[in-house]
Amino acid sequence: MQLLTNNVCAPKGFRAAGKCAGIKKSGKLDLAVIFSEAPANAAAVYTSNKVKGAPLLVTKKHLENGKAQAIVINSGIANVCTGKKGIDDAEETAKIAAKELGLMQDEIVVASTGLIGACLPMDKIRIGLKGIKSELSVNSNAAKAIMTTDTAEKGIAVKAGNFTIGGIAKGSGMIHPNMATMLCFITTDAEFSPKKLNSFLKNSVSKSFNMMSVDMDTSTSDMAVILANGLAGKADEAKFRNALDFMCIELAKKIARDGEGATKLVEVEAKNAATRYDAEQIAKSVVSSNLVKCALFGNDPNWGRIMCAIGNSPAKFKENSIDVYFGSMLIVKNGTAADFSFDEARKLMGKKEIRITIDAKQGKESATAYGCDMTYEYIKINARYTT
Amino acid sequence: MQLLTNNVCAPKGFRAAGKCAGIKKSGKLDLAVIFSEAPANAAAVYTSNKVKGAPLLVTKKHLENGKAQAIVINSGIANVCTGKKGIDDAEETAKIAAKELGLMQDEIVVASTGLIGACLPMDKIRIGLKGIKSELSVNSNAAKAIMTTDTAEKGIAVKAGNFTIGGIAKGSGMIHPNMATMLCFITTDAEFSPKKLNSFLKNSVSKSFNMMSVDMDTSTSDMAVILANGLAGKADEAKFRNALDFMCIELAKKIARDGEGATKLVEVEAKNAATRYDAEQIAKSVVSSNLVKCALFGNDPNWGRIMCAIGNSPAKFKENSIDVYFGSMLIVKNGTAADFSFDEARKLMGKKEIRITIDAKQGKESATAYGCDMTYEYIKINARYTT
Repeated sequence: MQLLTNNVCAPKGFRAAGKCAGIKKSGKLDLAVIFSEAPANAAAVYTSNKVKGAPLLVTKKHLENGKAQAIVINSGIANVCTGKKGIDDAEETAKIAAKELGLMQDEIVVASTGLIGACLPMDKIRIGLKGIKSELSVNSNAAKAIMTTDTAEKGIAVKAGNFTIGGIAKGSGMIHPNMATMLCFITTDAEFSPKKLNSFLKNSVSKSFNMMSVDMDTSTSDMAVILANGLAGKADEAKFRNALDFMCIELAKKIARDGEGATKLVEVEAKNAATRYDAEQIAKSVVSSNLVKCALFGNDPNWGRIMCAIGNSPAKFKENSIDVYFGSMLIVKNGTAADFSFDEARKLMGKKEIRITIDAKQGKESATAYGCDMTYEYIKINARYTT
Repeated sequence: MQLLTNNVCAPKGFRAAGKCAGIKKSGKLDLAVIFSEAPANAAAVYTSNKVKGAPLLVTKKHLENGKAQAIVINSGIANVCTGKKGIDDAEETAKIAAKELGLMQDEIVVASTGLIGACLPMDKIRIGLKGIKSELSVNSNAAKAIMTTDTAEKGIAVKAGNFTIGGIAKGSGMIHPNMATMLCFITTDAEFSPKKLNSFLKNSVSKSFNMMSVDMDTSTSDMAVILANGLAGKADEAKFRNALDFMCIELAKKIARDGEGATKLVEVEAKNAATRYDAEQIAKSVVSSNLVKCALFGNDPNWGRIMCAIGNSPAKFKENSIDVYFGSMLIVKNGTAADFSFDEARKLMGKKEIRITIDAKQGKESATAYGCDMTYEYIKINARYTT
């Protein structure tokens, strides 16, 4: 695999734009369009939250036939809890974009991220989309225009064999806050049926974004979409899935590292669990624990909290078989304290990237979860948002 | 019902003691004993965490016959993840106390709270318990001696008809942090079988401590125990259950109000849900959400987070039927923004006690959950604990 620039525009036939339409009060970029020259097969996965944003409902309907040719995304306002008007606004956004791009309304995917409960300023969106086709380029600001509390843009592209995959994502980390919806848009010039794309995407998301913890505050607007225009022709399935996995995991790590208020990226691997489910649940429970996250912020090797989090997961395990490592340092052996240097452990925890490994010694399955620490800044960001 | 002083010592035949045995480095009280003059029927409920503290395993064994006459509790060290030595230490604690109090080893309930992973300093416990019988009184420091990060002691006693119930609890709030184990000890002079006591206790706990949210960090050591010595004779069942409910809810509110770093008590009532399960899950999901808790700290009427939390609960509900109130102010009507004054809402949120009501308009069941806001102080307390 080879890393390329230009994220979603790296595959053949894709162009994009990112601009300021005045939706955000800050005057930052807030409107993005991704466009494929050729018709594309498409698939998407959506949030598990039962309160779903209007753009998700509209996109789901538009993707029923497995086809789409453009994506319109706005940041600043999420268009959630907006009733029938929200649906109408999302449909109108698609209609305006379709007209500008010479497509059918149901060939447009729409997505929004930002404040819940407010309606989209349709006048601004109408003006923003006017003449958008001429603004499309292969070197766009789309990744920037979908950011909310993100502090860095998140994009990646890889070439593997005859095809290329590109992706952009936004989201401020592991807790999926409601103003920091996780969105991911992937483009490729490989040719696959909507059914295949759907299965590949689900699988990759299960190892990446869905391992970024926390269900508790899963957004109403989370969405990952893939468009495949087939301009590079048929591609090797295993190679494609491998490249898609790599890209989704890299984007998930970018999101976790940029978690609200985060000072460090945390990877928790649960290995040698009896089942993959057990491994996933152990890793997610540890990476999601507020107490573990606070200890990580404070460089505090308080391993009891890790054991507590493991115990709170629905996984099956044997307490007296659990080993825990910080990096390569053994901290817990067979469920009780190992003989380790407290000062050395603190030093390890002071790094910008921390790896915790939990060895369940019950089987052969493993899973890795991605997260960050919990800091004063998290409270600051979230105590004042609408105000 | 009449409120009395002296918490666990208010019912006939109970005495207690709270003292400093030197287990905590701070020199604060850290050892408590509750004693019944007469044999008592007993019941207990334990944490759902699969990693369970040694004292819980020992207590469970001792209560197999439904009888106990004394409780020994230490704070400072939780005796969890301590392997066979932990079990031996908990049994030895019971043995020492039994000898001092003239009881059998299995008539002693043991409980510990504090740091996970460290072993009990048995020499200090041995010295602390020496001659403890002469230190027992009806006006004890037991409630103080079981505190860890608690900032206030939590006790209550009520007289209802011919019987009295008393209780003490500790715990620093809704997140059940592992160093802030929720412990509750209840005494009564009413006469009930262990089986009845068990059923009453389970029921009251389900409406009180189990509605104090969050499973995510449920402690390894949570325990609620009731001792009933029967010295007041048989009691009316409905009256007793009612008094027990009242007491457990009051203690749960005391814990939530004293949550780590908390500045306010939050009560979330979900009403008119289709089933009691739905009501419980909605109320718990809202009271547990980090984002809702941060908004409460910041007096930010960001109701979208409440809708998001409702959507993340496993409850069944109709989004477009949901009404949300802050106090008596309607904030959300039929799932979208109501016409309310932002400034008035902020004022309401500035109070020390906040009540959020969610009207599902689907049925007749309701449930209330208890919690607190999330603050900088929470991060501060939890970023440094072992260090």
